[in-house]
Amino acid sequence: MNPNLPIGIFDSGVGGLTVYRALHEHLPKERFVYLGDTARVPYGTKSLATVERYAVENAQFLAARGIKLLVVACNTASALALPAIRKSLNLDVVGVIGPGARAAVAAESTQETRTGRPRSQHPPASQRRIGVIATESTVQSGAYTAAINKADPEAEVIERACPLFVPLAEEGWADQDVARTVAETYLRDLRSRIDTLVLGCTHYPILKEVIQESVGKEVKLIDSGAATAVEVKALLKEKGLARLTPGTGALERHLCDDLDHFYVTDAAERFARVAERFLGSKPARLEAVEVWGHDELKNSLPLPLGV
Amino acid sequence: MNPNLPIGIFDSGVGGLTVYRALHEHLPKERFVYLGDTARVPYGTKSLATVERYAVENAQFLAARGIKLLVVACNTASALALPAIRKSLNLDVVGVIGPGARAAVAAESTQETRTGRPRSQHPPASQRRIGVIATESTVQSGAYTAAINKADPEAEVIERACPLFVPLAEEGWADQDVARTVAETYLRDLRSRIDTLVLGCTHYPILKEVIQESVGKEVKLIDSGAATAVEVKALLKEKGLARLTPGTGALERHLCDDLDHFYVTDAAERFARVAERFLGSKPARLEAVEVWGHDELKNSLPLPLGV
Repeated sequence: MNPNLPIGIFDSGVGGLTVYRALHEHLPKERFVYLGDTARVPYGTKSLATVERYAVENAQFLAARGIKLLVVACNTASALALPAIRKSLNLDVVGVIGPGARAAVAAESTQETRTGRPRSQHPPASQRRIGVIATESTVQSGAYTAAINKADPEAEVIERACPLFVPLAEEGWADQDVARTVAETYLRDLRSRIDTLVLGCTHYPILKEVIQESVGKEVKLIDSGAATAVEVKALLKEKGLARLTPGTGALERHLCDDLDHFYVTDAAERFARVAERFLGSKPARLEAVEVWGHDELKNSLPLPLGV
Repeated sequence: MNPNLPIGIFDSGVGGLTVYRALHEHLPKERFVYLGDTARVPYGTKSLATVERYAVENAQFLAARGIKLLVVACNTASALALPAIRKSLNLDVVGVIGPGARAAVAAESTQETRTGRPRSQHPPASQRRIGVIATESTVQSGAYTAAINKADPEAEVIERACPLFVPLAEEGWADQDVARTVAETYLRDLRSRIDTLVLGCTHYPILKEVIQESVGKEVKLIDSGAATAVEVKALLKEKGLARLTPGTGALERHLCDDLDHFYVTDAAERFARVAERFLGSKPARLEAVEVWGHDELKNSLPLPLGV
């Protein structure tokens, strides 16, 4: 595997840009290829079979482009489709659920909590509570509860679906009264019932401030995207896949092109507009593609970046 | 064409049930086959090419089932894809934009307006203003403005996208403070600027009360779905396609089965749950199907209802 290949990231749409941003911050030397499945967004209200099919198509599209590692930025796809994706690819695949869950457990065991007592003087582990907010499908899958309990079998997990957070973030209303009212409605009863809250959907970091206000400032928020970036960094090092110092050959110059590439399956203009809210600027290289019926289309696609 | 065949209705998801309800109320003797494309919902943020492709696939699926007329309940599909659908079918196709636009113009020319003056003493036609609220894609298409100006070239039309109304209606928060705040944010500046407001998305009738509060009670709200039902009733009469008194043969008994049939492309359970909020009860006959790759699938599909 050429360590100068880019890292592939896919999401159901624009939300995964929060994961891209975290990866970019933690791994400034790496290059990324991002796919947003905007023709079929959102995944969070769709079934296991449908999310699996969409996710595998996205994964194969990116793999055909030449990537060294795949990050599934979408929480719903990570919760429902990781086994199907791994079966379909000969690549390391990292989802956001495991890293988010592990970061929540790590935070629970080290932080001082809202009562001000250090963790050692705390109620027994069996009384610890971690909140998770996510899409309907992610909550229904129970994937976060399973992943948290794998890391800490005693932790009690409260999962809650917050469907309006996604359109609120995309509308750009993160700091408006509407966002505050919605967050209060979803979250007010979690106040004083949890020490840690996992933001289990890529859009939610955009609403971090109103979410923090609603659950109380003592609650530690975990951004699964940021937790994923930390684990990806460690994995690249472990596998010897971190990007090398640029060479001078033609291939190297191609591979060391510093612009990340963004693909969407529909409505590139809308993606660019919303992306600006998520990243602070519009993606420089953005292209609309089809990812379904991949086998027949393969020949008409642009050459894999790594070739 | 057998007048005892059902009327086909498709929508991007559950929202078209408000159109189904209106059709059912205006045409209690008719039977309906409804398709909700829940695997690819929503359409309102997607591009022309994508909405066309999805709409044609849905239309062909229903046509293969045996219907006498197709109603495109989805405003976005009506705005973007009617020509493509008509080209692909040998059937009468009715969208919701034309009926909604004509109903708005008719209301403008007959009603007394918020100033209390009858229309005859009103400002000249060129100063009349009709508001339209709809999805992003419907607004971008300008289809409502075109249809309204076809019926009244002097009318001034103000279109506005209200993306959060759909998830609000699906979440069941129509009568909550959140809905009131969202409606105020979108609509408060339309108050005193319009006499009539078209609800240009199937979900919006669910939010009728908060919308009315936000624009003021003098503004006449037009439900495109209800307007469509009135036009469909007239069309069936004109074409001699109204359903006949049930016969007694086996075919007639089959055709006169009084249960309407609902298909979804994904997540039937979620559809049933949200449908209850829209209809008051869960659909009795609900089935998940695939509508894409229709040609290859045709043989494996259930027999058309009309055979």
